[in-house]
Amino acid sequence: MSPTPNKRILLNAFSMNCVSHHQHGLWVREDTRQLEYTQIDPWIELAQILEKGCFDALFLADVVGVYDNYKGGPETSIIEGMQVPANDPSMLVSAMAHATENIGFAYTSSVYQAHPFTFARQMSTLDHLTKGRIAWNIVTSYLRNAGFNYGLGGLPEHNKRYDLADEYLEVTYKLWEGSWEDDAVLADRKRGIYADPAKIHKINHVGKHFDVAGPHLSEPSPQRTPLLFQAGSSTRGRSFAAKHAECIFILESKEMLQGPGNVIEDIRNQARLLGRNPDDILFFQGITPVVGSTESEAKAKEAEYIEQFSEEGALAHFSGSMGIDMEAGDLDQPLDSMDPKYMRGFVQSMIKSSSDQKKTFRDLFRTRLAGQFLTGAPEQIADALQKWQQLGVDGFNLVYSVTPGSFSDFIDGVVPILQQKGLVQSEYSPGPLREKIFGTPRLTNRHVASEYRK
Amino acid sequence: MSPTPNKRILLNAFSMNCVSHHQHGLWVREDTRQLEYTQIDPWIELAQILEKGCFDALFLADVVGVYDNYKGGPETSIIEGMQVPANDPSMLVSAMAHATENIGFAYTSSVYQAHPFTFARQMSTLDHLTKGRIAWNIVTSYLRNAGFNYGLGGLPEHNKRYDLADEYLEVTYKLWEGSWEDDAVLADRKRGIYADPAKIHKINHVGKHFDVAGPHLSEPSPQRTPLLFQAGSSTRGRSFAAKHAECIFILESKEMLQGPGNVIEDIRNQARLLGRNPDDILFFQGITPVVGSTESEAKAKEAEYIEQFSEEGALAHFSGSMGIDMEAGDLDQPLDSMDPKYMRGFVQSMIKSSSDQKKTFRDLFRTRLAGQFLTGAPEQIADALQKWQQLGVDGFNLVYSVTPGSFSDFIDGVVPILQQKGLVQSEYSPGPLREKIFGTPRLTNRHVASEYRK
Repeated sequence: MSPTPNKRILLNAFSMNCVSHHQHGLWVREDTRQLEYTQIDPWIELAQILEKGCFDALFLADVVGVYDNYKGGPETSIIEGMQVPANDPSMLVSAMAHATENIGFAYTSSVYQAHPFTFARQMSTLDHLTKGRIAWNIVTSYLRNAGFNYGLGGLPEHNKRYDLADEYLEVTYKLWEGSWEDDAVLADRKRGIYADPAKIHKINHVGKHFDVAGPHLSEPSPQRTPLLFQAGSSTRGRSFAAKHAECIFILESKEMLQGPGNVIEDIRNQARLLGRNPDDILFFQGITPVVGSTESEAKAKEAEYIEQFSEEGALAHFSGSMGIDMEAGDLDQPLDSMDPKYMRGFVQSMIKSSSDQKKTFRDLFRTRLAGQFLTGAPEQIADALQKWQQLGVDGFNLVYSVTPGSFSDFIDGVVPILQQKGLVQSEYSPGPLREKIFGTPRLTNRHVASEYRK
Repeated sequence: MSPTPNKRILLNAFSMNCVSHHQHGLWVREDTRQLEYTQIDPWIELAQILEKGCFDALFLADVVGVYDNYKGGPETSIIEGMQVPANDPSMLVSAMAHATENIGFAYTSSVYQAHPFTFARQMSTLDHLTKGRIAWNIVTSYLRNAGFNYGLGGLPEHNKRYDLADEYLEVTYKLWEGSWEDDAVLADRKRGIYADPAKIHKINHVGKHFDVAGPHLSEPSPQRTPLLFQAGSSTRGRSFAAKHAECIFILESKEMLQGPGNVIEDIRNQARLLGRNPDDILFFQGITPVVGSTESEAKAKEAEYIEQFSEEGALAHFSGSMGIDMEAGDLDQPLDSMDPKYMRGFVQSMIKSSSDQKKTFRDLFRTRLAGQFLTGAPEQIADALQKWQQLGVDGFNLVYSVTPGSFSDFIDGVVPILQQKGLVQSEYSPGPLREKIFGTPRLTNRHVASEYRK
């Protein structure tokens, strides 16, 4: 493990273009803007609040199907607004980017939802429009309904999804890194030459899943390849992450992070074997802060949230992530009886690293619910984050209970303390998102994408 | 034909997220913002100018490949910035929408570039974000390089592209019109019910090209189906347009519009046979206005443009539209020797309606260049547009020579005259784009999409 005690903690807000993202049941409150998710204004307000708080990025989750295995159907998800409806996150970016200057925008796109030629152009366009503030959260989908929406006859098997993702990344790297040379664009008004054809290349990719001729339709953008996020906690997901990811979203317990072969240590080791530096990859732990001006105020707030929390919504959510119907009698089965076919990586990881394989799904679910909130006065939250940092975590994806309230409470209360301690930035450094985080706007030569450069 | 003398003239600005859209060679001028196409600001400025001028919509063209058949390759296109690079137009919309209130945004998306499940959600998201101001220009692609970018081994044959487009539309209609009933969303805070599962339906589309389960991931947006634009002038394109289109972009000569079987008469007749009203379809003629405060000032401006105009750029452009290399000896072949495989609809239409089939490509090209500008003092332009209207045209797609200058010249000079004559709107009517244009926010029961409603 590579502890990073002197480094700043990175902060992302975790949200989704939908009614109920993670803390289900709370959309009914008057102090949250979740019901306005279809409009532009709440997103602009959120981006501006986060930028005032010097956050690194707004991280937008997404799904391309409904969670439909709890009680054998999507009914609970629909009633709860649980990630359905779910609007396209990419469409929010240009409006938020125009209203801000520094904050990054990371959004989720599955390798099944968009052809890589189309997706690569979408990302390049946004990287230009945001002046280099765009990031991609690479996912391979885990909902079987997503597979049925794309004519796949259900969801392909876990490892096959990652194989396709590997080729998808190869195509996009060729387009982003290899198609237009740095000095291809002349924009020479005197001679009337916009670009030099000798410096723009077809990619002529011929693969198992894709044939793509190119050239890329976008000229080089500030970052070329967007900053790459991933959440790969399964075995295959970890090796994929070690190869591709720059930022990794994890949902681990402290015990899991301290054990041997923990996700951070494992992925950094694998990355080293691929010629990358340990610091080329940063880990973001998911955290749900409940901040009060005093501990008791925070506890009272938490009690309200727990009171309003929808266990039905959580069961529908968890059933989708587990790939099983948690109502259909499996709830009290031991963890090791599980078919990992539809299982999300973090669940696989939780199970793999669990000391007791005879724990049940019900145990796991309860542990997850009980551990979801990080509640306290600002100083307590700051201390807790510092402890996570000492376990090797580089940053946090903050889950809201109410939006933007959970974020502004954190920014008003916790961020100034972390800034005073020198643990989070007090102002943005210049340049594109990757430069703000890694000191360089483009991927280094240690990253696999560099192989595709001309 | 159904002349519409008492109706207002509709106005769209025609542009593209690229350097050189139509009037090639002019990007080198100091009075155009074409070189800033990658940034947000010029697009917001343009949208605000157009809204001040009461324009109906900004219409964004697009391609998903390079024009690569002139002189056997893409070199000329690249040198001229001729629709390459070309960034994704959809990514511009939310920023422009946030800076405006009434103007519509029509953008082009090919049935080959995005899976219909993904595209339908993108459109619904934007229809929400814009409060119903989104329109889709349906295209089937005409560049062979586009086919090679999507693993199609080149471009499918013309009629096959339209067959696929028919199914693509069917899938999207099912998602937009048939998946969520109007009262599916309750957003009931007291009972904690977001939506009613009984009123949200899978579409279970099983077709030749697509299998899509659904349900749609977006709740009903103001227009549900976006306002549908198309540019279908070929035989197959016309029947497709008669079935689907609400607004049709044409590039016709006055002679062609006066002849029997002209595109307006033909499509309206076909639409009538399908149960639609003639007024359910509006025709937008492409026009390139050059406005001066006096005729001589306008002529001087035109002379400058012609002087700077790039014939090479135009030949590369036209070669792509014709599907032939205009340098490789075909320039002096008669029109009827042409293989229509890669030919754009408007070219097919021009040829079909040409009285002399022994005309050559060179003749056609010269006619097109010579006829491209509509030049004069504001009164002259206004008169000319009124004459077009008398030929059955409902509106115009205005092509710029410099941007936003060509549009602001038109808005400052011509629009007030047309407004005084009661020919164009002086303020926007309320509601979504379709309601502003057709008086109703949703497609009527005469449109084929209504068959898919629950």
